[in-house]
Amino acid sequence: MTYCVGISLKAGLVLVSDSRTNAGTDQVSQYGKMHTLGLEGDRQFVLLSAGNLATTQAVLAEIRHELADNPDCKIAKARYLDEVADHIGEISRQQQSRFSDGEGLNAGFSPRVSFILGGQIQDEAPGIHLIYPEGNHITTSMATPFLQIGETKYGKPILDRILTPDTSLEDATRCALVSMDSTMQSNVSVGPPIEVLIYERDSLRFNRYLRLDDGHSYLRDIRESWSRNIRQAFDALPRFNWEITGPPPGE
Amino acid sequence: MTYCVGISLKAGLVLVSDSRTNAGTDQVSQYGKMHTLGLEGDRQFVLLSAGNLATTQAVLAEIRHELADNPDCKIAKARYLDEVADHIGEISRQQQSRFSDGEGLNAGFSPRVSFILGGQIQDEAPGIHLIYPEGNHITTSMATPFLQIGETKYGKPILDRILTPDTSLEDATRCALVSMDSTMQSNVSVGPPIEVLIYERDSLRFNRYLRLDDGHSYLRDIRESWSRNIRQAFDALPRFNWEITGPPPGE
Repeated sequence: MTYCVGISLKAGLVLVSDSRTNAGTDQVSQYGKMHTLGLEGDRQFVLLSAGNLATTQAVLAEIRHELADNPDCKIAKARYLDEVADHIGEISRQQQSRFSDGEGLNAGFSPRVSFILGGQIQDEAPGIHLIYPEGNHITTSMATPFLQIGETKYGKPILDRILTPDTSLEDATRCALVSMDSTMQSNVSVGPPIEVLIYERDSLRFNRYLRLDDGHSYLRDIRESWSRNIRQAFDALPRFNWEITGPPPGE
Repeated sequence: MTYCVGISLKAGLVLVSDSRTNAGTDQVSQYGKMHTLGLEGDRQFVLLSAGNLATTQAVLAEIRHELADNPDCKIAKARYLDEVADHIGEISRQQQSRFSDGEGLNAGFSPRVSFILGGQIQDEAPGIHLIYPEGNHITTSMATPFLQIGETKYGKPILDRILTPDTSLEDATRCALVSMDSTMQSNVSVGPPIEVLIYERDSLRFNRYLRLDDGHSYLRDIRESWSRNIRQAFDALPRFNWEITGPPPGE
């Protein structure tokens, strides 16, 4: 599996993804799921991917060929981010349909992929879209400034509790890393290295990229700190009334 | 949906369940998912249920009829908890098969149910079993002293972090309530009242039962406290090195 999260803030975008791919327990390997595209100063995009690896690579190859072969292609010229999401959704549908034969060859096989597209086109606001395997897509809202793909549930509570559109880029990054750490603790199919991309609004270039492998000091620090802090948070919870009732005074 | 968790500790058992049932958004209602059975002083059992409500009720009815009509029935006389789990698994399979017609009437319909069985039979250790819809079952281990059914993922990280076989009954209850609260915050299909059952090892009676509805002061206290403590835990996480770097000294 996979876990990727994209966060859209007033200050910009934060994107975080894991790097574990598996096709059965004896075929676990590392593949980055974060792919950047764009033209510095004009438009920047990043794609996070979850699902079938062959389809993902086919979609990315088609996008890269388009950008290389046709300077006027959709991705290079679209006015709006949702047009780019539409276009990637179409490519994804086509690639999936090439390899799915319904009730055919292999009943357990699924060519499906989901993407998170983040980015900004000059003169437009930055944003994030979740592109479903069906090719349609959704974006964030004020109440829900984040989107997730892959193993989304383990890490959702902390995002729900912390994130608002006013959260700083750094706090949002920490929150995504805690969300990722909780997911890795509870599910072995999600694993390091963790890739982090931070985009400051209107910069039209990717400002910070971190690749945190298992031994990375910051990943270790945040993991140990969170584990300790959560334990303290837990120990500070109110007691039940029967725990408070002690022996009568004077004894 | 549903969320239920059972915890097996050296000190005894803790079982927690929500009460929201839905068959579509216009048919949301309250049904307790915690059902106690047993003979005080000889054996005590509790069943938590997730899945099709009609199947659940049919399984419970059959068990109650057995206990009422036949004092020598399996549940009343089994030597071991896993025999009881086996028997309930068989009843569950039979009830599910009555209502499933494969590719038939209603393709979207599923009669499947899962159960958590907790309890103790005199002269045996207390324990917990997760009974799958297929009728087979698993129990806990030293490394994983808890079992979950229903919407299990949102609330798993906190259980993974806190619970060991040495955890106290009260700490385990608090941990299960935090797990339940995180699940309710992230998924509207899980909701109060929350039922809590605490069983002290070898007591052969259920020692404490709590029913916490939405306005219950302890549920509110633990929710507010956790929300505040988590925020503090988050704010105390280490900074990135570029956040630490301030202006040069002397400025």
